[in-house]
Amino acid sequence: MQTVVEELELKGANARKASRAVAKLSGRVRDQALVNIADSLVARRQEIVAANEADLQAGRAAGLSEAVLGRLALSDERIQSLADDVRGIAAMPDPIGETFDAGRRPNGLQVARRRVPLGVIGAIYESRPNVTIDIGVLCLKSGNAVILRGGKEAFRTNKALVELIRDSIESAGIPRDAVQFVESTDRALVGEMLAMSDYIDLMIPRGGAELVRRVAEEASMPAVTGGVGVCHIYVDREADVDKATAIALNAKTSRPYACNALDTLLVHSGIASSFLPRMATEFAKSGVEMRCDRRALSILGQVDGSAAVSATNQDWGKEFLSLTAAVKVVDTLEEALEHIESYGSGHTDAIISEDYSAAMRFLDDVDSGVVIVNASTVFNDGGELGLGAEVAISTNKMHARGPMGLKELTSYKWTVLGTGQVRE
Amino acid sequence: MQTVVEELELKGANARKASRAVAKLSGRVRDQALVNIADSLVARRQEIVAANEADLQAGRAAGLSEAVLGRLALSDERIQSLADDVRGIAAMPDPIGETFDAGRRPNGLQVARRRVPLGVIGAIYESRPNVTIDIGVLCLKSGNAVILRGGKEAFRTNKALVELIRDSIESAGIPRDAVQFVESTDRALVGEMLAMSDYIDLMIPRGGAELVRRVAEEASMPAVTGGVGVCHIYVDREADVDKATAIALNAKTSRPYACNALDTLLVHSGIASSFLPRMATEFAKSGVEMRCDRRALSILGQVDGSAAVSATNQDWGKEFLSLTAAVKVVDTLEEALEHIESYGSGHTDAIISEDYSAAMRFLDDVDSGVVIVNASTVFNDGGELGLGAEVAISTNKMHARGPMGLKELTSYKWTVLGTGQVRE
Repeated sequence: MQTVVEELELKGANARKASRAVAKLSGRVRDQALVNIADSLVARRQEIVAANEADLQAGRAAGLSEAVLGRLALSDERIQSLADDVRGIAAMPDPIGETFDAGRRPNGLQVARRRVPLGVIGAIYESRPNVTIDIGVLCLKSGNAVILRGGKEAFRTNKALVELIRDSIESAGIPRDAVQFVESTDRALVGEMLAMSDYIDLMIPRGGAELVRRVAEEASMPAVTGGVGVCHIYVDREADVDKATAIALNAKTSRPYACNALDTLLVHSGIASSFLPRMATEFAKSGVEMRCDRRALSILGQVDGSAAVSATNQDWGKEFLSLTAAVKVVDTLEEALEHIESYGSGHTDAIISEDYSAAMRFLDDVDSGVVIVNASTVFNDGGELGLGAEVAISTNKMHARGPMGLKELTSYKWTVLGTGQVRE
Repeated sequence: MQTVVEELELKGANARKASRAVAKLSGRVRDQALVNIADSLVARRQEIVAANEADLQAGRAAGLSEAVLGRLALSDERIQSLADDVRGIAAMPDPIGETFDAGRRPNGLQVARRRVPLGVIGAIYESRPNVTIDIGVLCLKSGNAVILRGGKEAFRTNKALVELIRDSIESAGIPRDAVQFVESTDRALVGEMLAMSDYIDLMIPRGGAELVRRVAEEASMPAVTGGVGVCHIYVDREADVDKATAIALNAKTSRPYACNALDTLLVHSGIASSFLPRMATEFAKSGVEMRCDRRALSILGQVDGSAAVSATNQDWGKEFLSLTAAVKVVDTLEEALEHIESYGSGHTDAIISEDYSAAMRFLDDVDSGVVIVNASTVFNDGGELGLGAEVAISTNKMHARGPMGLKELTSYKWTVLGTGQVRE
């Protein structure tokens, strides 16, 4: 272990050193590096596919589930699409150097805040190897160095991708050391990485609840808490039943494994008997199980073919990550707000209502990263909200909340231009 | 201890509950609460002065230094001036509810970020009782609840001030529990407070380096790192000697005990023989000791009356907090930049130069919260940089850097207004 830890420390020190160089490079150089990465992904895709094939074989031999193998696989087409994404990010405006809150003080000082990179980003992630490209590219675009630590299932793919990134940035004039890859997949090493506050300015976990919790608890540096969403949709008495049904169906079934998927449906008692049977029919067609409170169940007991079962206490506040939704009938908007405050995770919550005052009250009172009126919870996404790309979805209140794009990977410094001013 | 910890937990829970109420109140209510505080400070100043007199007597009996007693004292005039400050903050624009990055997405969704309070701020501070008013008022103005833990020397004064604040906000319609006061001055309790991440969203230490370090190491919630500044002024070869002398003198002597005071003077060798003797004469008049490297000393050895002594290695990167400055001669701008990178604390650094390219290079390359050209380091201050007030000066890169005003005590949530949108 000692040697591995020393190696990790060395990577940290190298990343720190490289980060100073990257921070000083122009956006043009950083964009060229991204274009080189996109070109190399296409030119060297056989090499990547071969590494990925080796990971897939090892994964099959180890008995990984089809779902995990599916997330692991990188086809020719997938690589082409990754390269397109990288070109898209290269074409985005440079977040670095933006000046804001600028002004002249009464004493003549010219004061401004100037956007600068954070420094070194750490990323710990699980089986999807495209995260290596996604996070690597977003960090470079925002002028940061990065230390990547992927899952062991994707080890060969990730290693090949990182080598490709390092070659590509070097030919644009960025030090290879700006992108570091932790080669050991020993879980104990995660603890060592989380202690490296001297070398890592922000830690981003991308994976399941267990990883996110561990990082939140152990990280000695600031860390993103995110990726865990207990998402509610409240169907108000004044909801349009067509919209409510379509939105809840989309929120539950379009990306059931994502953190922004619907978990709990709260339904006003004044609309429950007209809405719930319609919803149950649609959910049944998509194979969604409904875990219902007593009142919802008494309504749905009469609906043919609905997969409605009794909810247990554990179903409230649960992130299902599957085709399952908890369903509860409430008598007032206040009751819905209290339920969300008690059981929500501050990630994404929505109201469906044609009642203006109810919608505004919900927007004001729900204390979540993304609060939505009459649209699907799955719009909590960097691309959908206009950030162009996303490195994580934060449920922290400090620094960044909701989807984190390029700007959220930056800090700022104050610049003060004087002509000899002193202070009384 | 157990009872004290339980009491602390209860205060945390009460603050959390009150924070939800405060977040929903209008700016008008919060401003009225601040006006009430200002009025009460004037109306009840005898009560405050009496409590302060008791603290001062106890302090004298305990043998506190005149400097500590001076920081502790609250005269009638000082209270009047505090009340004026509170009125000034009440008159500032409300940071809460500001909407930014707003736009309409191609699918018609109306997307925006809306500024919201952080929740509960914790503050741990030392002897100055005015901090109770400063931090309490800034937290309330920004819609936050606050848990205050002052130093034991100011216990009676702080307790009287907190009672005054609680009475004042209650008469404006804000729950008293929005402002909590930790009555135990047991140091062990600081550890308990730093573990209360469920109840405190941001911890602000205001005090010496030891407190700041302890909070940075132990806090389970996000914490401001700040208040420790190793500040450099680099006098370039092309510096205007008049400006350089006036600025360095002001930076060292106007507030020698503040974190933004000059610590190390780096002087280009091409200007050292004309600048340093002038500087030494001025410093000598103000009683500033110069701890010089060999080259600076060889120049200053010939200056009558200068208090120039040999620097030791411990003097580089030292925050003096006294009328002492380290002085080093460098041969290039690069050497100055390297010194600042090695020994600086990322707080405040300045260049004095008439060379445009040198000034721009310094601004670009120095990675500090506030980087200054041709002005005094003591301008790193919320009021001076246009924030109106300041709760701390951060050297963190996450969330807020440099002086933290009202906006830096807030988070945001995304609001999404739809008309039935679902995602493909």
